[in-house]
Amino acid sequence: MMKHVTVIGGGVLGTQIGLMGAYTGHQVTFWLRSESSIGRTQPKLERYKKMMIDELERSKQLIGNPLAAAYFPKGLIPDPANITVAKIDASIETARQRFEEQIEITLDLAEAVKEADIVIEAMSEDPAQKKQIYERLKAVMPAKTILCTNSSTLLPSQFAEATGRPEKYLSMHFANQIWRFNTAEIMKHEKTDEAVFNTVIQFAEELNMVPIPIYKEQPGYVLNSLLVPYLSAAQQLWAVGIADPEKIDQTWKIGTGAPKGPFEIIDVVGLETVYNIAKRQPQAETEGTIPNQITKLLKEKIEKGETGIHAGKGFYTYE
Amino acid sequence: MMKHVTVIGGGVLGTQIGLMGAYTGHQVTFWLRSESSIGRTQPKLERYKKMMIDELERSKQLIGNPLAAAYFPKGLIPDPANITVAKIDASIETARQRFEEQIEITLDLAEAVKEADIVIEAMSEDPAQKKQIYERLKAVMPAKTILCTNSSTLLPSQFAEATGRPEKYLSMHFANQIWRFNTAEIMKHEKTDEAVFNTVIQFAEELNMVPIPIYKEQPGYVLNSLLVPYLSAAQQLWAVGIADPEKIDQTWKIGTGAPKGPFEIIDVVGLETVYNIAKRQPQAETEGTIPNQITKLLKEKIEKGETGIHAGKGFYTYE
Repeated sequence: MMKHVTVIGGGVLGTQIGLMGAYTGHQVTFWLRSESSIGRTQPKLERYKKMMIDELERSKQLIGNPLAAAYFPKGLIPDPANITVAKIDASIETARQRFEEQIEITLDLAEAVKEADIVIEAMSEDPAQKKQIYERLKAVMPAKTILCTNSSTLLPSQFAEATGRPEKYLSMHFANQIWRFNTAEIMKHEKTDEAVFNTVIQFAEELNMVPIPIYKEQPGYVLNSLLVPYLSAAQQLWAVGIADPEKIDQTWKIGTGAPKGPFEIIDVVGLETVYNIAKRQPQAETEGTIPNQITKLLKEKIEKGETGIHAGKGFYTYE
Repeated sequence: MMKHVTVIGGGVLGTQIGLMGAYTGHQVTFWLRSESSIGRTQPKLERYKKMMIDELERSKQLIGNPLAAAYFPKGLIPDPANITVAKIDASIETARQRFEEQIEITLDLAEAVKEADIVIEAMSEDPAQKKQIYERLKAVMPAKTILCTNSSTLLPSQFAEATGRPEKYLSMHFANQIWRFNTAEIMKHEKTDEAVFNTVIQFAEELNMVPIPIYKEQPGYVLNSLLVPYLSAAQQLWAVGIADPEKIDQTWKIGTGAPKGPFEIIDVVGLETVYNIAKRQPQAETEGTIPNQITKLLKEKIEKGETGIHAGKGFYTYE
């Protein structure tokens, strides 16, 4: 088992990764850039600690319900079949204690990584920033340490040389609400050592994640490689006027049993993100094409402020 | 409300449509081609009657379960929020009675349609056969009668003229296990009368279906227009060796909460069907392309007999 886990960055995913690390018994160190980063990260940590403990509390109501298997937060309760109220109470107790005792925050990069078995870089998706931090890490990270990036849009080969340890560098991509959407997409690049790849797959299991090994570099990893064409097909039906978004969603939900249809997912992802993807289509700027019609209609909605669930309105209206 | 519903054909979907028609209070007449068709249709009718009543019985166990809403067969129990054991028992009683009293089978086409408010053609997907039956119907169907095709692969405009009533002709496409997957995709063609389109939308509601109005002809309707690119994206990840089918499925299920991933769906649809769709891709026959690799890999599995859930093995092994 990995003992020391260092998380570089205290954003939404970084904090969640660190908390899951501590919850599952690891010693976690956050490296943050400045005092003001600490000021921004602390409230996030408190918020996600509370969400995790609230999820555990709520899960008690699921015990004994024959339909509940799918509803447990698997990152927190990996074995719902054998769960009891007493076990959940013990997990809550453990969570509180580990959040208290097994998490450190430091501004000193050398200090942050000096005992690290694995470092997870969870900075913003800015290649220049990533390269800069990799250069700094190269100077202070022990030779044994594995370095992972949580990037969701950049490929690891782009940075492999900059890390100075291409064979110990790869992607490990987590999803928001890690305690519930507990996949870890683990993607190697051509120079990643096979043993390192396997070690990170095991580490994902230690974190109560379901490891998703990705054997070749793939933009969008697995989830977005499926989501993008699926959401795009739905947007086509809408843009061409074949059917209404709500009806398209109903068809998908009834036909496949899924809890959300494509337009409900678009509202969660946010219309700006979907628009940015649509704009990259080859024909997006060619008048009279479907991709062009899609970008125009999305833009209209964005300009009206209908950008999704966070705005209270997207394809649906939210309270 | 439509009173007399005639179903042309006694296949899997035809029988289910007729049974739902009777269950929801309509007078249903099946037209079958021959005595031997009757011999094939009767056991199907008995089988689906039993499945519907079993579903009603099983639903009693869901009552009071706060997680059960998604599990009720909505075609049979459209309002699960207010359901009781007594109401389900009454529905079972009604079902038995209506299956007995409100269904007729005839070999006489004129007799079958003489009082029909709506005729649903649910023959096999053979354009020549469809044209032939439309020609025969033209001679005997009352002027007021609406004619729908349950075709899932052919577009209504192809047959509109042959029906002699293009303005009263359109598609109404049901899904297998109509009592649970209760969408009715209702697609008009350019000459379909708007009032007729709306009447059929209402009729779908009378059948406890969720109507999905489709305003322009679209091959694949809504569901397959989403499924095909989604399943194709999954096949690409597999064929290129990005990730394993089971892991691709896990990613989708955890990421979106869906009960099935793409390869589980492919196993249900059947690999032959998926192969036939893949073969139609422009590059399917060009060596070295991804579509070509997909068709090759699918063909290998089909040749080994791994054609899906019905064969006991596809991407997964079934008992």
